[in-house]
Amino acid sequence: MAARPRFGANYVPSSQWFYSWLDFSADAARRDLDDLASIGLDHVRVFPIWPWIQPNRGHIRRAPIDDLLTLIDIAGERGLSVAVDLLQGHMSSHDFLPAWVLTHHHRSVFTDPAVREGIARYMDVVARAVSERDNVFAITLGNEVNNLWPYFDTTSAASREWASELLDVVAAAAPNVKHLYSVFDASWYHPQHPFDPADSVDLGDLTTVHSWVFNGVSDIDGPLGPATVSHADYLVELAAATSTDPNRGVWLQEIGVPQPFVPAADAAEFVDRTMSYVDSNPALWAVTWWCSHDLDRGLLDFPDHEYDLGLFTVDHEAKPAARALEKYIASRRPGAPARRVALECPIDPHSHPERRADIAPGSAFHAEWVRRRADGPIAIASPTCGIDESYLAARGITEVTRGEY
Amino acid sequence: MAARPRFGANYVPSSQWFYSWLDFSADAARRDLDDLASIGLDHVRVFPIWPWIQPNRGHIRRAPIDDLLTLIDIAGERGLSVAVDLLQGHMSSHDFLPAWVLTHHHRSVFTDPAVREGIARYMDVVARAVSERDNVFAITLGNEVNNLWPYFDTTSAASREWASELLDVVAAAAPNVKHLYSVFDASWYHPQHPFDPADSVDLGDLTTVHSWVFNGVSDIDGPLGPATVSHADYLVELAAATSTDPNRGVWLQEIGVPQPFVPAADAAEFVDRTMSYVDSNPALWAVTWWCSHDLDRGLLDFPDHEYDLGLFTVDHEAKPAARALEKYIASRRPGAPARRVALECPIDPHSHPERRADIAPGSAFHAEWVRRRADGPIAIASPTCGIDESYLAARGITEVTRGEY
Repeated sequence: MAARPRFGANYVPSSQWFYSWLDFSADAARRDLDDLASIGLDHVRVFPIWPWIQPNRGHIRRAPIDDLLTLIDIAGERGLSVAVDLLQGHMSSHDFLPAWVLTHHHRSVFTDPAVREGIARYMDVVARAVSERDNVFAITLGNEVNNLWPYFDTTSAASREWASELLDVVAAAAPNVKHLYSVFDASWYHPQHPFDPADSVDLGDLTTVHSWVFNGVSDIDGPLGPATVSHADYLVELAAATSTDPNRGVWLQEIGVPQPFVPAADAAEFVDRTMSYVDSNPALWAVTWWCSHDLDRGLLDFPDHEYDLGLFTVDHEAKPAARALEKYIASRRPGAPARRVALECPIDPHSHPERRADIAPGSAFHAEWVRRRADGPIAIASPTCGIDESYLAARGITEVTRGEY
Repeated sequence: MAARPRFGANYVPSSQWFYSWLDFSADAARRDLDDLASIGLDHVRVFPIWPWIQPNRGHIRRAPIDDLLTLIDIAGERGLSVAVDLLQGHMSSHDFLPAWVLTHHHRSVFTDPAVREGIARYMDVVARAVSERDNVFAITLGNEVNNLWPYFDTTSAASREWASELLDVVAAAAPNVKHLYSVFDASWYHPQHPFDPADSVDLGDLTTVHSWVFNGVSDIDGPLGPATVSHADYLVELAAATSTDPNRGVWLQEIGVPQPFVPAADAAEFVDRTMSYVDSNPALWAVTWWCSHDLDRGLLDFPDHEYDLGLFTVDHEAKPAARALEKYIASRRPGAPARRVALECPIDPHSHPERRADIAPGSAFHAEWVRRRADGPIAIASPTCGIDESYLAARGITEVTRGEY
């Protein structure tokens, strides 16, 4: 097992994006991961593509799993530990899905028993293979699997059961690594979204959050306003406050600087302010930047903001965000764990997902938290946990206050 | 250009079905095509898989096109000519579709301008590549593309425009081969189906028909009744009668012996009777059996009848249908073109697609045609063409009669 990761990148191949799995080049991967190691990163999150490994429910191909292992070894040679996401599934607006769940075979990946059995088999095989490598530290079920709804039916109960069952499969196949669940932030903010905050904080070994400024805060005060640059910290804190375990870590698994929401000229400043905010959070377990490399404009049909998210260009030039992140990592001085005042959350997201709008960007509570955050670290305490002294102490919270909301 | 093909097979790889494209083995292909050449076949129809060649609208991979060329060369070494279908698309209940037309990117392959532009580019590149091989005799737009509706919207007008435009693309890219359009028989029988019979007979260099007994006739008198074993001849004749060109050939591009509709014990007899009927049809241009090899039961989610359609088992044993076909090919004695009486069709499918139910299996017209066919070859003449003496003469029709329908 590698040392605890701190700062890494989501690995997006510089040449042919994830289509490169179909023509895997170890040399191209070496060059890409050289870039990441060069700026002081310690880990990468990598994404095999499900239907290319399991094109039929009964057929799991060995060649792409071997390519994945080669990539993991290449990372290891550069001192990078690796997190593997299994069910892609969703990547940058594109859903990669095998024919056996499409059109004439349309069955929900979340609720159909045969499909779930097939996915369990896929996860078992891939998890077993990658966990044999010493530098693999985590396996996530899949990238933002909640993006596969509504194309595939689910309910809150079914989603939780799905994740729970599959985490058990992965834990049995790969007992030596962390097992994680991952969704995008609709799970935190949209009242009717059938993936509950409780799942993120109860299931798996860590909570993962993905902070994207275009999902709300950018409209408030982007590109460099306090709501925008504190959003990663807000999500990490919200996740920490929702867990019943005061010691549960939160992995900021995705954070990026998307244009035009944050213009290129503001990228370095966005990195610096965002990192300064979130890195002070005692719950923060690791940060993984989205993403390693830009997307070639010759590849079509992506949302415009996806093309320029790389720390590096497709020609391996470090962009200002990469330099800012490199500098931040090299110069950070983590202090003692913060002793903080907490703002009482108007709801407990764990038990009242139907009231998620009350904590979404733009809510009175969010506005108050952002206002106070500008003065220094501020925790969040749920109405349920906020009355438990030992819980508060474990989170370093010295006082719970309430604002106007 | 190879000699005019007569009897061939749709090539379904014996190992890993079309998923084998992802791990292409020239040795496996050699072994499979040895089987087909051994029973006297002269051609194969082959099926690249669209999303594995064009995973992004802007990215067409070279490696799978090279594999396709290798397969074509392997066929050539065995004296087999090759027809290539481009847009798969639909294969045996599974639709292979790239992420750029799915879920968040759901756009109709038939009507969306950007998608059509992407498909045109794909067809241009693949058609250009394969037509450089001397043993390629035809390129079909795709296998039964009408199966991609209703998942993708279309109208009769849009479908025709789609096929017409793409046939122009293929003709420009590959002027030395035949360019063909291919749909399944709903186009002939279902009144509201948005793919008209006129398209099949007007577009491309030949008309293609696919005869599957489970689409109607098997319910009438399967497995070996006259409606069942004459269905291929009926479709060929209907296609000939619908064309305004009396000399247009009709390629029976798919005909197979699906269990349980035709039990294994009746397979050889089905082959013999079906071939005897259809081979007397003067419009018949070629017959291509579906399919070369069985499907391994380890591959899941196929309709049950798809597993045993092979002329050969997955272990390369010739099945009774293969022996019957081999014997038929070796012993056939094509006579002089038939002089035939025609039964007047109650509708002209070319101009009245809304009345297709009147000619579907089970219709009074179909029943009368089957009754007369048992006494010998019987043509079909549409009400429009049946009054044109030179047209009738060109089709070898000596008399037009009418029955009780």
